[in-house]
Amino acid sequence: MKETEISTLGEFGLIDHLTEGMESINASTRRGVGDDCAVLRYGDKETLVTTDLLLEGIHFDLRYVPLKHLGYKAIVVNLSDVYAMNGTPRQVTVSLGISKRFTLEHIEELYAGMRLACEAYGVDLVGGDTSASVTGLIISVTCLGEAAEGDVVYRSGASDTDLVCVSGDLGAAYMGLQLLERERSVSEGIKDFEPDFAGREYILERQLKPEPRRDVIDELRQLGVRPTSMIDVSDGLSSELLHICKASNVGCRIYEDRIPIDYQTALMAEEFNMNLVTAAMNGGEDYELLFTVKLTDHEKVAQMKTAKLIGRITKPELGACLVTRDNAELEIRAQGWTAF
Amino acid sequence: MKETEISTLGEFGLIDHLTEGMESINASTRRGVGDDCAVLRYGDKETLVTTDLLLEGIHFDLRYVPLKHLGYKAIVVNLSDVYAMNGTPRQVTVSLGISKRFTLEHIEELYAGMRLACEAYGVDLVGGDTSASVTGLIISVTCLGEAAEGDVVYRSGASDTDLVCVSGDLGAAYMGLQLLERERSVSEGIKDFEPDFAGREYILERQLKPEPRRDVIDELRQLGVRPTSMIDVSDGLSSELLHICKASNVGCRIYEDRIPIDYQTALMAEEFNMNLVTAAMNGGEDYELLFTVKLTDHEKVAQMKTAKLIGRITKPELGACLVTRDNAELEIRAQGWTAF
Repeated sequence: MKETEISTLGEFGLIDHLTEGMESINASTRRGVGDDCAVLRYGDKETLVTTDLLLEGIHFDLRYVPLKHLGYKAIVVNLSDVYAMNGTPRQVTVSLGISKRFTLEHIEELYAGMRLACEAYGVDLVGGDTSASVTGLIISVTCLGEAAEGDVVYRSGASDTDLVCVSGDLGAAYMGLQLLERERSVSEGIKDFEPDFAGREYILERQLKPEPRRDVIDELRQLGVRPTSMIDVSDGLSSELLHICKASNVGCRIYEDRIPIDYQTALMAEEFNMNLVTAAMNGGEDYELLFTVKLTDHEKVAQMKTAKLIGRITKPELGACLVTRDNAELEIRAQGWTAF
Repeated sequence: MKETEISTLGEFGLIDHLTEGMESINASTRRGVGDDCAVLRYGDKETLVTTDLLLEGIHFDLRYVPLKHLGYKAIVVNLSDVYAMNGTPRQVTVSLGISKRFTLEHIEELYAGMRLACEAYGVDLVGGDTSASVTGLIISVTCLGEAAEGDVVYRSGASDTDLVCVSGDLGAAYMGLQLLERERSVSEGIKDFEPDFAGREYILERQLKPEPRRDVIDELRQLGVRPTSMIDVSDGLSSELLHICKASNVGCRIYEDRIPIDYQTALMAEEFNMNLVTAAMNGGEDYELLFTVKLTDHEKVAQMKTAKLIGRITKPELGACLVTRDNAELEIRAQGWTAF
């Protein structure tokens, strides 16, 4: 691979190069990269804004995460937050801190993944900042989106008797990470090591290339269901349930046998001798949507293809509990992944 | 000083603690910290967005920059970008990467400076992200602002015969940095070293506590002058002039004897045996506003308190040149501070 030192371009040259040929998709993007600010126009809509900081050595390990996937994921985790408000993501800004070991070609790879995610979800990259860093790669993404007035769904809208639903399945990204870390540690010092990922493609993809659940938002709209509360599952189901319970001042009962888990996730947990439900409840990085709906929407959500009923909202004094297969009640605690 | 390990609070605890008691100032801030996204409402205005990444060891040195000043400056440099579009900053998001050597009290100091800047300029802190970092402090700030339709001023609007103006004075922040670095290197290994900053307060303040030029925007409005192009001076006057010339496809003639320089800046340059004009043209971090106006606005800008006429816009084929005191013409080149 060709290696070009970033310093040969300089900061402005780098931005120009990376954003070359980018055209705006959204009518709300009036002016993108190239001035002191980007200029956007949301008309009479609400503006949504979210931001995420991804740090090498804390949030990602480049020994097994390809840069293109990392770029894709860095965008996607922000889009997921906008969908979790029942909004539509429109623009992102990207700031990068780049240490000396990265060449222009590395950053192009990273950007290729970012562009791919932007194209897939109809989002414009409208600005950012690039800088040298002392050590490692630093990625800061901010995403802006919009929602029609009254459409925004907060964490705080759940109330007693509401139904609790979650999209997709849980714990797969976490098991994918365990697999990647095992293969990396096994491979150390072995030349031309070929990890065996056959039959585990799903959990790897869930870790390396998560997709935000735009399709869930679309299905809810088609069914005419407006969630009463919603959050994306980034730190694990337990942690997110507690966020909703706290913000809405409610409790919840979640049924263990209803938690959606993929077969590959279950196999991998067995191989690692891990508790499957713990992995599904606390694994994190699922980027699924957890939401509540009114009891009267039961029939509609029961037929959903993208999401599943997993429990119900209760009065706050009942707390947040997990009802096990043998009918025991466990208090739900956040063991979610934390960066501190 | 009390020392509290950040890990005792956890990520959510830290955010809750830092944002405690923050109330929104702006009507456009519908919902701040505490959900997947902040929710804003700009009505029929244009939305402006800008972002800056500040890295320890690259952009700041905590051996001589107090954390409170750093927090203030991290906000201000973003506000400056919004004013440079002729807009009004309304919201910021702040992401922090924090290494183990920082205690809760350190981060409170940093945040105190951020809050002070937000209060001074009427801006709401509406969200962000905090994380551990492997080494050093990482600060990523995104600022959102608004402007009425047609009010936004780009870099690209300058045309032949326009007048070039700059606010305040230049080179002071750069000389302040030189002074701080000298005192730091002199102080090494000396116990209870007391640096002597008497008579140099202005250049230090320009480095440590820059103010964005809201007052310039206000004065332009009062005079009924709408700049044809505008940019903030962050990388040095030379670099910013070239940005305007490139974006507007014009040239410029700047007169050396018109470049505003403070007396303390001049004294310091002499002491360091540095070329004063080079420092003023290329020092950077001035956060002044560089703008162009129509020739017919000459009388109005001539009476401005906050800005001064320094040259004029020419046809592109004449290039960007500095006319020296002895009437020589030098080509303006960007020697601006670059982080690569």
